[in-house]
Amino acid sequence: MSEAESLLARIYEPGDLKTLSLPELHQLAAEIRETIVATVSKQGGHLASNLGVVELTIALHRVFHSPRDKIIWDVGHQCYTHKLLTGRYEEFPSLRQSGGIAGFPKRTESPHDAFDTGHASTSISAALGILAGEWVQGSRNRVVAVIGDGALTGGLAYEALSHAGQLRLPLVVILNDNKMSISPNVGGLSKYLSRLSMKARYQQFRRNFDAMAKRLPVVGDAFFEMVVRLKRAVKAVFYTDNFFVDLGFEYVGPIDGHHIQQLERVLQDVRTLGQPVVVHVITRKGKGYSFAEKDPGSYHGVSSFSITGGLVAKETVQEDPSSREAALSPVKRGVVNIRPDLWGNGSFTDAFNRAMLDAGGRDTRVIAITAAMEKGTGLSPFKGAFPTRFFDVGIAEEHAVTFAAGLATQGMKPVVAVYSTFIQRAMDQVIHDVALQKLPVLFALDRAGFVSDDGETHQGLFDIALFRPIPNLTILAPASGLELKRMLDWSLAAVDPAMIRYPKAPCPHEIHAFSQPLERGKGVFIREWGSLACLAFTGSLYPQVWDAADRLLAVNIAVDLYNLRFLKPVHEDYLVEVMNRYELMVFIEEGILEGGFGEYAAELASRRQCTAQIRVLGIQGNFGAQGKREELLHINGLDGEGIAASVLGFYGENRIYHLPPASGFKAPIWPHG
Amino acid sequence: MSEAESLLARIYEPGDLKTLSLPELHQLAAEIRETIVATVSKQGGHLASNLGVVELTIALHRVFHSPRDKIIWDVGHQCYTHKLLTGRYEEFPSLRQSGGIAGFPKRTESPHDAFDTGHASTSISAALGILAGEWVQGSRNRVVAVIGDGALTGGLAYEALSHAGQLRLPLVVILNDNKMSISPNVGGLSKYLSRLSMKARYQQFRRNFDAMAKRLPVVGDAFFEMVVRLKRAVKAVFYTDNFFVDLGFEYVGPIDGHHIQQLERVLQDVRTLGQPVVVHVITRKGKGYSFAEKDPGSYHGVSSFSITGGLVAKETVQEDPSSREAALSPVKRGVVNIRPDLWGNGSFTDAFNRAMLDAGGRDTRVIAITAAMEKGTGLSPFKGAFPTRFFDVGIAEEHAVTFAAGLATQGMKPVVAVYSTFIQRAMDQVIHDVALQKLPVLFALDRAGFVSDDGETHQGLFDIALFRPIPNLTILAPASGLELKRMLDWSLAAVDPAMIRYPKAPCPHEIHAFSQPLERGKGVFIREWGSLACLAFTGSLYPQVWDAADRLLAVNIAVDLYNLRFLKPVHEDYLVEVMNRYELMVFIEEGILEGGFGEYAAELASRRQCTAQIRVLGIQGNFGAQGKREELLHINGLDGEGIAASVLGFYGENRIYHLPPASGFKAPIWPHG
Repeated sequence: MSEAESLLARIYEPGDLKTLSLPELHQLAAEIRETIVATVSKQGGHLASNLGVVELTIALHRVFHSPRDKIIWDVGHQCYTHKLLTGRYEEFPSLRQSGGIAGFPKRTESPHDAFDTGHASTSISAALGILAGEWVQGSRNRVVAVIGDGALTGGLAYEALSHAGQLRLPLVVILNDNKMSISPNVGGLSKYLSRLSMKARYQQFRRNFDAMAKRLPVVGDAFFEMVVRLKRAVKAVFYTDNFFVDLGFEYVGPIDGHHIQQLERVLQDVRTLGQPVVVHVITRKGKGYSFAEKDPGSYHGVSSFSITGGLVAKETVQEDPSSREAALSPVKRGVVNIRPDLWGNGSFTDAFNRAMLDAGGRDTRVIAITAAMEKGTGLSPFKGAFPTRFFDVGIAEEHAVTFAAGLATQGMKPVVAVYSTFIQRAMDQVIHDVALQKLPVLFALDRAGFVSDDGETHQGLFDIALFRPIPNLTILAPASGLELKRMLDWSLAAVDPAMIRYPKAPCPHEIHAFSQPLERGKGVFIREWGSLACLAFTGSLYPQVWDAADRLLAVNIAVDLYNLRFLKPVHEDYLVEVMNRYELMVFIEEGILEGGFGEYAAELASRRQCTAQIRVLGIQGNFGAQGKREELLHINGLDGEGIAASVLGFYGENRIYHLPPASGFKAPIWPHG
Repeated sequence: MSEAESLLARIYEPGDLKTLSLPELHQLAAEIRETIVATVSKQGGHLASNLGVVELTIALHRVFHSPRDKIIWDVGHQCYTHKLLTGRYEEFPSLRQSGGIAGFPKRTESPHDAFDTGHASTSISAALGILAGEWVQGSRNRVVAVIGDGALTGGLAYEALSHAGQLRLPLVVILNDNKMSISPNVGGLSKYLSRLSMKARYQQFRRNFDAMAKRLPVVGDAFFEMVVRLKRAVKAVFYTDNFFVDLGFEYVGPIDGHHIQQLERVLQDVRTLGQPVVVHVITRKGKGYSFAEKDPGSYHGVSSFSITGGLVAKETVQEDPSSREAALSPVKRGVVNIRPDLWGNGSFTDAFNRAMLDAGGRDTRVIAITAAMEKGTGLSPFKGAFPTRFFDVGIAEEHAVTFAAGLATQGMKPVVAVYSTFIQRAMDQVIHDVALQKLPVLFALDRAGFVSDDGETHQGLFDIALFRPIPNLTILAPASGLELKRMLDWSLAAVDPAMIRYPKAPCPHEIHAFSQPLERGKGVFIREWGSLACLAFTGSLYPQVWDAADRLLAVNIAVDLYNLRFLKPVHEDYLVEVMNRYELMVFIEEGILEGGFGEYAAELASRRQCTAQIRVLGIQGNFGAQGKREELLHINGLDGEGIAASVLGFYGENRIYHLPPASGFKAPIWPHG
């Protein structure tokens, strides 16, 4: 379609929608779907969830007056239509690119993005806060939270509903029920929502009853009174006795989320309501794109694909159809700008998955738990092999952790597998329910470090700093798939809680050092030439550190390489001994510097009066922008180039170092082929 | 009563209960109440909540077979009867004393304590995990979670209920509804529970209806059918359509929580049920002790009192009647083993309260938010003065934080006041909803550092380490009430998120240094004599550090004193300049060492090649035991004696230091009277 014919190209702000006719709205919806499919097919993104809310978003923007009225998108991965209708059509092709528009709402990007989201279940809390802020100031603008049925399993959403029911401000909660976010067997709430939908049938029944009752002979006042009371009771079933009404909300629904007129009519009514209301909208994920409609799970978060042919198997990650998964982009393999011969097969996620299968087969006490990240964490094969020992608790990290603690008291060996960014949601449960009781729960943190494409909200930069302070907890960082397996087996054999953190990245080729047996608190040398400097690193940075060492060697600087393995506990005497061998010791971690391993090492060196100069590289005071992992490592000076440059700088600033022989330096044989 | 006549003294384990007659059970309940009142009157503890569950606990232990069957006490402050009936009668007088039995369940203390609690809302998750662990192993023991209506507002409880409803294991949840834990206006759920109780009345109505319907003339098949369906609908109201049933539970109740026979009958039925069930029990807090029954709020957490005369006003802390408050002991004043002339009037909580009243009066954008800690955080006067700008969201820290973030987007200045230990529950919300968007939310963390009596679960040792890594966040630690006010005003004027952490302790007398204007990233000297060593400390330790300085002066070692004020951000050039003035720089913090300020300072000194020796004092690798704050500071070497001894040790180990003149040293005038 040419630009001239395009309606979408002429929508600069939501006000432009209000003059469109119904046929034009249908055309617009079609154009939006076309644009989303075209853009996502080229560069990946969230497809099914966005196709599901096209009509809902149009109706919301026709009825409410953004940016005066605020619309908060829970998780935020379903905001593409919203972005297209709020002046970002032209920038839309830059979606999720470095420097482009974000895949999630961003207040810095548009006044129409009222609140940043990314993690699930925050929208009702945020919307209620915004509304309370408006009311305190005397404004009567409206605030709408759009939340999926998946995000509703998060306790935060429930806390917010409960508070909203009490405050009685006219908050509008759109329950976007696509019956997908929770797999059919997860969550009591899921069943409940299905049951709720069926209640609509009773409404017809009541109308019949009313008509019939009017024709009844009068049997006596007592009976008449009883009928009235019965009717009230029945009304209670239809209109008031549901979960949301229990919490103080009006409830409207369920309504067809693809019927613009019906949506608008209901939203118009709701807009003038003076109290909190839940509008239960049924949508279909992937709506309007046949491939996605048939298999929304696979089209949830996708990389590029053929519009006419659908996904190419290799490029798809079979994501779990939960909204959690939706917030994450698929694994991109092999696009790492370093020596290709370092790379083995498969990702750390695959390696975890294999190690879990093996451990589960050997020990019936091994139990896997995740929070709506079954496939993202690689646990599907484990679930297939040991269905009774697999628990997906839904979007509920807090519960996942405390549930695991309970299991551990019974002699089980629970493994809680979640992404690094989401374990932040269960901080207190790790402290209070696991570490304090020293229960042997193992935490497998996938996507630790930088994560491609999804931006700040999905980076795994905090786990080292957040969990290092917790007593009784072991923290491990593998550099390879085999080392991950070693660590998993070691942790499962231990009696303390432990955490293994690994990146969303391919595994390097195995070398001998990776398979060395673990010794509590000790790392392992990857290269030990007796250099004057040593690079000590967290496992995920092995390829980058190796690349840096190559670059340094090219300018005749040899460095030893030390894989830390244990970020906690540390065998201090051993680390001191290691540090004392060098003039310069550089600690490099894929995590935030503040509270990281490097600060600890500097304090240890100071306390034990080590003579080595200690330097620390890591992420300093930022959340990590939107971009590929490699780009982000580069920006933060943590790729081979950046690390080498920093090490050269340290040499320069510390005149005390002897440079290695300027020529004739004979590199030992590489420790791997 | 003599030991010979005492039934309680003869209960060594729950099995001993099973032979008792009903009159004996009533006698036992009376003895338990007497014992609890006597013990708590002597040494403080939780009174009203424990008196409320005497019969419930007896019935549970008669029906279930602990320790085979497990009983999990949510929060845990109501476990006194449980402890008395499980072999701890003789040790009961040591309750909450250093080395004595804990005020909360402890697995290390008894096999009957199935899971440690302390923070609210964990019991259902833990119980479900335990039950799943039993079932995986083929055991069919029963697991019971006892949770109050207050703890049920926590999202974690809801996540667990939802998961339990799905798993369909025969979990028993006892909802201990004392209608106290939530103040009447907090929480949609509170209203809901009241409504639920009223439904019992309908049951009688339905029986009447049935009787009457039988006498009706037949009006036609259609109407008869309709009556049947109506009855079914009404039944739905009574028996199935409630919050818990929506989530997949059977629901029984409400039943009288002080009627042992009725409780036993219901629990016997429930014990054989093959599915998850909620037993709704109505109890009365303070039951059986007239003072507490009349005013359970004041008797929730108490210090010592007169049994016949009730509380002496001065010794009571008017705690908010929430179960959260119950987990915390009252402020103990003036028992600090250092120079009494350092002490001002009032606690840091009082100072915060005054500062908030002042700020709220000057700026209508200032909004106070707490999570069931209204009185504990000192916000009652603020609520009284500015009722529309005060929000108590119930036990729901996550929501409190995200709600505040929403308010901040509207130009409000929200202040979230919670205890240090509870902000752990909103870690991700602080990161994802506040810091990432750089929203000016102020966190007021009361009870940071060691907290008396309540043990590990209530220590505030992690806040510095947990929040220092978060970008955009300012962390402040006042040493006095006036400094707290300075920091509050400074933070409210700032555009970034900030956190002020202060201890559960009395404020010291004001000195000039405390009221110095704040400079971003800089601390302030309390004593600046040009000594060779400097003690840099977090505000709460000012009295201890001062005491240490006194002790050092007594052996002719002068030290300068530097109050850090800003734990983040730090004006690095300034701190480097400060460090460079000394040969020994000791950083002392009331918080966990790992990830604390000291490690950062050591890394900074290393990076900037400071010549000063850096040493760090803090809490190392433990959660803090049960005891008084002063005892715990002493044990951890953070009282004046311990700090002085450490500093002497540092002098000794570092031969590089010049000792100050051995005699004739003239101490300058004290900076305060």
